[in-house]
Amino acid sequence: MANYPDKVFLNGEIIPSTEAKVSVFDRGFLFGDGIYEVMLQINGSYFFGQEHLNRLSECLHKINIEYDVTVLPEILKKLVSVSNLEHKDCLIYIQVTRGIAPRKHAFPLDIEPTVMAYALPFLLPEINDKPISVITQKDFRWHRCDIKMTSLLGNVMANDWAIKNGHFETVFYRDDKITEASHSNIFFVKNDVVYTHPADENILNGITRAIVINLCKKNNIEVQEEAIMQSDLPMVNEAFLTGTSTQIAAINMIDDHVYIKNNKIGPITKKIQQLFLNLKNSQTKRLPQVS
Amino acid sequence: MANYPDKVFLNGEIIPSTEAKVSVFDRGFLFGDGIYEVMLQINGSYFFGQEHLNRLSECLHKINIEYDVTVLPEILKKLVSVSNLEHKDCLIYIQVTRGIAPRKHAFPLDIEPTVMAYALPFLLPEINDKPISVITQKDFRWHRCDIKMTSLLGNVMANDWAIKNGHFETVFYRDDKITEASHSNIFFVKNDVVYTHPADENILNGITRAIVINLCKKNNIEVQEEAIMQSDLPMVNEAFLTGTSTQIAAINMIDDHVYIKNNKIGPITKKIQQLFLNLKNSQTKRLPQVS
Repeated sequence: MANYPDKVFLNGEIIPSTEAKVSVFDRGFLFGDGIYEVMLQINGSYFFGQEHLNRLSECLHKINIEYDVTVLPEILKKLVSVSNLEHKDCLIYIQVTRGIAPRKHAFPLDIEPTVMAYALPFLLPEINDKPISVITQKDFRWHRCDIKMTSLLGNVMANDWAIKNGHFETVFYRDDKITEASHSNIFFVKNDVVYTHPADENILNGITRAIVINLCKKNNIEVQEEAIMQSDLPMVNEAFLTGTSTQIAAINMIDDHVYIKNNKIGPITKKIQQLFLNLKNSQTKRLPQVS
Repeated sequence: MANYPDKVFLNGEIIPSTEAKVSVFDRGFLFGDGIYEVMLQINGSYFFGQEHLNRLSECLHKINIEYDVTVLPEILKKLVSVSNLEHKDCLIYIQVTRGIAPRKHAFPLDIEPTVMAYALPFLLPEINDKPISVITQKDFRWHRCDIKMTSLLGNVMANDWAIKNGHFETVFYRDDKITEASHSNIFFVKNDVVYTHPADENILNGITRAIVINLCKKNNIEVQEEAIMQSDLPMVNEAFLTGTSTQIAAINMIDDHVYIKNNKIGPITKKIQQLFLNLKNSQTKRLPQVS
């Protein structure tokens, strides 16, 4: 399913992806010392692009990598164009690592960051209407999940465990509190109230997560940034994941807890999915296709 | 201080380090999805080389990377030779990542691992006789510190914080228990008993750590694999770090707790340093220098 892009932006140049290589002394390769973003172009415009670039900038700042993200829109414009995706829905991946230096943990302050980006065709369904199942696992990742870093082995292991067992995601709990999934946030509905873990150091403050919270607030759906406990799972009425490429995915099962039968998505999840679709359509506009 | 090596082994070839590059789709670069080792050649032979290769193999197995480390001794022999380090003391760095694939968290099983290694001149003092200071920090890293992975941002941040504040290392505590430092293990001496955190998932089971425990056992020094609590720090008599390149480094200060004055290393640390030197001399033999 997954493919390589044709072109990659790397340190100022757009080159064939087969030629896109970094030094083995890049700290991204030696230490996972970098930050990344994934964002979407929908109907010819970036969906909450500024929010993604702001988060990239904030995360880089948190780990002391100096890089001015305001240069990115122009770079991405060229990249999308060269990738023949100018008016097509696509996913844009951006990674900034600390740069190249002889290997030692403490980092030099005078090196140039490595900047890599690519765009891939990516067609999202209007609404993600296929419920998915997830499994839970103790959150064994670090305690700064607010940083969208490339040191992702914990997330990789957890996601791989879910996928290889026929599930979409692994959902973590820390001290009995459900935090998030390996590459998405999680929401619950209990007695008509929507719950999600507060945006502290235990979760990534997802862009789609923030959008959903705002949609709830604007549409008289009560929403609480408050963790659901593992012991609450039997009492929960609905559950869904959010993420840039996941959008809003209804959860039919968490471990042995069944929330959806016969693919019938719960009413609040369904309402939020519809509100999200309306937002997508209002935020993005169909540009004329180049003939 | 740190330098690049002249030569790098990369996927079967030994090439100039300036040409040693990996694809940006290497999972080592995208996900920190790899394992590494650092070992020493002293007096012409590897110091506990087999133990390092065994640990590399065990860690690769823990994250499901299939790679037969028994091919490494021949590779390293060539690498050391081409690096003009055949009879010289040197440090050998080895990194194995999962390989190259289009980006997605769950990993394919049919890709070739990326293997990179280099050797650098590295002269160790016979005994590390310069006491160092450390600072403590809550252990915010993941909960599988037994895996020597390249997703090292947490360790990088912690070590950088120590170095930029004039200390040698950051020592972590988790739930009040002192675990280890950002790239070394820690030992304490309290009432003539040597303590170190047990080798569970909270620490890396260091090769030098295991050597020190064995040296204690063989030399009638009582040793307990039992964590020292933060609240024990005022009652501790001596403390030292261990690591492949650190060897045995006496600690003069942990935060505000002073253990050494006027560089006078405590008697048990001093004894273990001497036992370690004797072991080094007995395990390695000076090969004739090539004229």
